Amino acid sequence: MTKVILIGAGNVAFHLTKQLKQSIHFELVQVYNRSATVFNDALYNDIKTTTSLEDLEEAAIYIIAISDNSIAHLAEKLPQNKLIVHTSGSMPMGIIQGDRSGVFYPLQTFSKAKTVDFSSIPFCLEANTDEDLLLLKKLANEFTTKIYEIDSVQRKSLHVAAVFVNNFTNHLFYQAEALCSQYKVPFEVLLPLITETVNKLAELSPKDAQTGPALRNDTKTMEAHLALLNTKQQKIYTILSQSIQETYGEKL
Amino acid sequence: MTKVILIGAGNVAFHLTKQLKQSIHFELVQVYNRSATVFNDALYNDIKTTTSLEDLEEAAIYIIAISDNSIAHLAEKLPQNKLIVHTSGSMPMGIIQGDRSGVFYPLQTFSKAKTVDFSSIPFCLEANTDEDLLLLKKLANEFTTKIYEIDSVQRKSLHVAAVFVNNFTNHLFYQAEALCSQYKVPFEVLLPLITETVNKLAELSPKDAQTGPALRNDTKTMEAHLALLNTKQQKIYTILSQSIQETYGEKL
Repeated sequence: MTKVILIGAGNVAFHLTKQLKQSIHFELVQVYNRSATVFNDALYNDIKTTTSLEDLEEAAIYIIAISDNSIAHLAEKLPQNKLIVHTSGSMPMGIIQGDRSGVFYPLQTFSKAKTVDFSSIPFCLEANTDEDLLLLKKLANEFTTKIYEIDSVQRKSLHVAAVFVNNFTNHLFYQAEALCSQYKVPFEVLLPLITETVNKLAELSPKDAQTGPALRNDTKTMEAHLALLNTKQQKIYTILSQSIQETYGEKL
Repeated sequence: MTKVILIGAGNVAFHLTKQLKQSIHFELVQVYNRSATVFNDALYNDIKTTTSLEDLEEAAIYIIAISDNSIAHLAEKLPQNKLIVHTSGSMPMGIIQGDRSGVFYPLQTFSKAKTVDFSSIPFCLEANTDEDLLLLKKLANEFTTKIYEIDSVQRKSLHVAAVFVNNFTNHLFYQAEALCSQYKVPFEVLLPLITETVNKLAELSPKDAQTGPALRNDTKTMEAHLALLNTKQQKIYTILSQSIQETYGEKL
């Protein structure tokens, strides 16, 4: 069994730990975290844990799943002849010095309380050598079949794209909920529409799935809509409507 | 059986027709449309159709499912002692003159090619009298159990909210796809994240589900993101990030 050490005990590290404990090809020999409090979780009962880098054991792969700003500093303290990877979407591979650096990035939002089904989660991999890439692929195989080779620039673009489809989309949901609450309509009325918006992607590209007053250049409806919105919502409505119109401008 | 006549053969009318044909409590006696071409669809083989308002038969309910701008004009030509409803999200009930007007609004995006499962679609109802509202509820029951009494102002707010969660969300998906295509990353990598963004709503309100660099005020990441975007995307990124920060400002 290939030995793995996990650095960190935050949301991502927590779920990686859970999954690695079940592996038959990889052995999670130790988990490191700066503070010991997190190790009180039952998950860590039967795993060696440490809060001291000096007590770190030997492993073939070190997975660093901690905050972006601390990765470089921590990587320096690990054995330089072993494969050292981080799990960050926005950090380049090169932030880890040395010839055996890599990236092991599961593209999903994690929260500790919610069980994760890794089989549906894409892993974006990067390594300096073909050999290390193969090792990472084997490791990723313990989690999912959705494995992608993604270089650092591509991963950065994916990370921005993720902000659009997750953070910003969620904020649009929030604004819709605020409107519902203001006009005393239950937000649940919108849930089937939200689900269908996403289900459509299985059959149509977002470009082809676009509908609505901005696309139709239905200025009468758009003016009526703006009259119902607060200043912040008006700004969002205007920018996104303009962007839709510019996108489809050639067609109109 | 209560007699119903449908005015229109567009996307919404098409699916309403399909469902009403199966009803055992309501009888779809006739479908009217301005032009006959649409009636070539097999759906209309065993239904009486007409392109002349003068040939309209008698019914207890007339459902007008045509473009917003034509509703008022068409309603005038129908028997004023019968229940006349439209299916529009943005038009007030009052656009139909008379004492027996109403609204029968299924909140969903429809396309002819895609089969509709009405049981998951909320119907927003409005009528001038309790009696007519009851009649509309019975009719809506043929489609769904998700029935809501929504007045004209509430429905208008719902219609704007629907633009946020459907049209604008889809445009964010489009921008994410454009980024993926520019950096040669398959868009499918983002689909599980999109699904999870929506699934989270079953457990968390959008306000509580918010994550990301704007919420954390992680200016370093936000600057790196902006550097990857085109002018249009930068505007969207900036407005939505500002709106997130203003929304959670009290907390930060």
